[in-house]
Amino acid sequence: MVSSSDPLALLPPGDGTLGHVAIGDITLVTGVVLPGVTLAVQRWGRVAEDRSNVVLVEHALTGDSHVVGPVDSLHPTPGWWNGLVGPGLPLDTDRYCVLSVNVLGGCRGSTGPSSLHPDGHYWGARFPAVSVRDMVESERVLADLLGIERWAAVIGGSMGGARTLEWMVSHPDRVRAACVLAVGARASADQIGIQTAQIMAVTSDPHWQQGGYHGTGRTPVTGLGIARRIAHLSYRGEVELDERFANRPQPGEDPRGEDLSMSGRFAVQSYLDHQAGKLVSRFDACTYVLLTDALNRHDVGLDRGGVEEALRSCPVPCVIGGVTTDRLYPLRQQEELAALLPGADPLVVIDSPAGHDGFLTEADVVGPMLERTLELAEQGTSEKTRGHA
Amino acid sequence: MVSSSDPLALLPPGDGTLGHVAIGDITLVTGVVLPGVTLAVQRWGRVAEDRSNVVLVEHALTGDSHVVGPVDSLHPTPGWWNGLVGPGLPLDTDRYCVLSVNVLGGCRGSTGPSSLHPDGHYWGARFPAVSVRDMVESERVLADLLGIERWAAVIGGSMGGARTLEWMVSHPDRVRAACVLAVGARASADQIGIQTAQIMAVTSDPHWQQGGYHGTGRTPVTGLGIARRIAHLSYRGEVELDERFANRPQPGEDPRGEDLSMSGRFAVQSYLDHQAGKLVSRFDACTYVLLTDALNRHDVGLDRGGVEEALRSCPVPCVIGGVTTDRLYPLRQQEELAALLPGADPLVVIDSPAGHDGFLTEADVVGPMLERTLELAEQGTSEKTRGHA
Repeated sequence: MVSSSDPLALLPPGDGTLGHVAIGDITLVTGVVLPGVTLAVQRWGRVAEDRSNVVLVEHALTGDSHVVGPVDSLHPTPGWWNGLVGPGLPLDTDRYCVLSVNVLGGCRGSTGPSSLHPDGHYWGARFPAVSVRDMVESERVLADLLGIERWAAVIGGSMGGARTLEWMVSHPDRVRAACVLAVGARASADQIGIQTAQIMAVTSDPHWQQGGYHGTGRTPVTGLGIARRIAHLSYRGEVELDERFANRPQPGEDPRGEDLSMSGRFAVQSYLDHQAGKLVSRFDACTYVLLTDALNRHDVGLDRGGVEEALRSCPVPCVIGGVTTDRLYPLRQQEELAALLPGADPLVVIDSPAGHDGFLTEADVVGPMLERTLELAEQGTSEKTRGHA
Repeated sequence: MVSSSDPLALLPPGDGTLGHVAIGDITLVTGVVLPGVTLAVQRWGRVAEDRSNVVLVEHALTGDSHVVGPVDSLHPTPGWWNGLVGPGLPLDTDRYCVLSVNVLGGCRGSTGPSSLHPDGHYWGARFPAVSVRDMVESERVLADLLGIERWAAVIGGSMGGARTLEWMVSHPDRVRAACVLAVGARASADQIGIQTAQIMAVTSDPHWQQGGYHGTGRTPVTGLGIARRIAHLSYRGEVELDERFANRPQPGEDPRGEDLSMSGRFAVQSYLDHQAGKLVSRFDACTYVLLTDALNRHDVGLDRGGVEEALRSCPVPCVIGGVTTDRLYPLRQQEELAALLPGADPLVVIDSPAGHDGFLTEADVVGPMLERTLELAEQGTSEKTRGHA
């Protein structure tokens, strides 16, 4: 039983209720000290007495700690891996405790640009730049606070995959097994290019106000909307989009009218307008800029002799997966991970038209990958036991 | 000899000098009448007495009629097909006259948004929307004026390829042979998506001023620059960009600094800044919007029973080419053209890392395609001669 003096009492209940854990100051890679950091946390399942059964699930850029569950007043989006976490499901909460943390710098409960600065005003763009390594450092502090020496597994896709990779390379002794989906060892030129264009779209919006828009009643929704349209296209497959929308007009509209007012839309425009509208209503623009910039900085090889050396020296048993039609993190990047990580299973190629989002939508393939990851975690335990025998 | 009463006297000399031809009013597909249209024209070589040797070369979105030649006071960019047009070159100006026309709605000498309206003010966004079909209609009027019954060939890539396709399908009797590079039969959902995001970036810039910025001293350079960054990435190959820039910082700059000011750049950012800067210094933002919108409207099958019927009924002998790494007009689109056009040679697959821009950079492959196109044009002539015998 977990007593009230037990550090696990810091956690919310095991039914997915949102909780908040104060982890103190965090020193960032840049040397900046971020004071009084809070992380938003959700968990599903019970922590075993020896704390060996906790699986850390890492969310993507605009995701949050709500891995499973319905939309409710605290959760603007349904769980992004509904069907994969729960009793008897691939991440089986009868055996494991699944923990998810809103990323450092996020806007869904953790300290970030839309939080209050100690001076009582919003952080906004005064928030210091963070890297994926800083995100992992904040989670390392959390694990220490909770007395979790070693995660049973760390699992994530896209930005969540980048966090997972950093965990594996920074703290291989604290990760029994890992699953990394739809990401690369470092940002590519193309990613940095399209991501900086998105950042420019947000920060060029007159409502950006040098990043100090919080509390002014004017937010850069147009710029964030443009960024999301670009990003959303990069998340989906080219053929998939064309099969779904082609160049059809939105019903009742004429995108081939006589003037340039652009009042009539194509169906795909209406779809992207909808995607943009959904994001701007739930996500903070400055947080989008901060986390996008963190993805630009992502490089597991930095100050470690490069990507190849960093990956080759990481022994964590792991499962790597990529999607055939991923345009943002193309399959060549996961091929590199699987080739260089000595603990990696052969690459799992997810054959899907859904593009980058395939890691969210292809539960039929992702489910067995998660099961395999836990199998690796268990093998690690039994080998360790054998070693001690 | 061409006498001064000869309509060919409307043309500039055959050395590539820029000229302008007034073609009168143009009735657009939408029914709008565009008054007093001028087209900017360049040509290389002599027009044969029977006018059977004129090759129309169609430029892409931000190109112009300067197909070959150096940068000079009238031409801000070097010829985009230098090395392919000239005496003894694939488009051999000892035998053929190569003619190129700045597109209707363009900003390099033809009537467009940056031209003066009959009321003495700039057209700006009052300029009516145009389609690729309207561009071809203006060139049809020009051909009539010049007494050119039939082009020896029509040739183009990207937007120039769309114009070429429209020529083939609208006026198959006036095109002896054609070469179509790096384009599709209609805009795809992905193209419309990324192109409308670019249009939003321009028209959301506060300097856009509802498209009435001409003459105000303030132009939407930030928005156009964002659009160009996005577009430029779509023109290049993903691997090529990464091999060239990876995630290296721009020398002397630190893109991993401690704040979000983004003052330090990655090398690929600097490259895209440079590309954006070059474009905004030479290209009109409203023209960019107009022509991008025209590409969204592009559909050779519109009002012709669809793409398949339109292409299957077009007998023009032609050469179709696409680039393996083209992300904007992926190879599947040129495969479709080659499969459906009864006069098409087997598809020429340009194996290049350069992406969409391969149709500009891979002269080694494009040269023989142009030669083959002229061979088809000559076969057409001799078959016609045999038919008459």
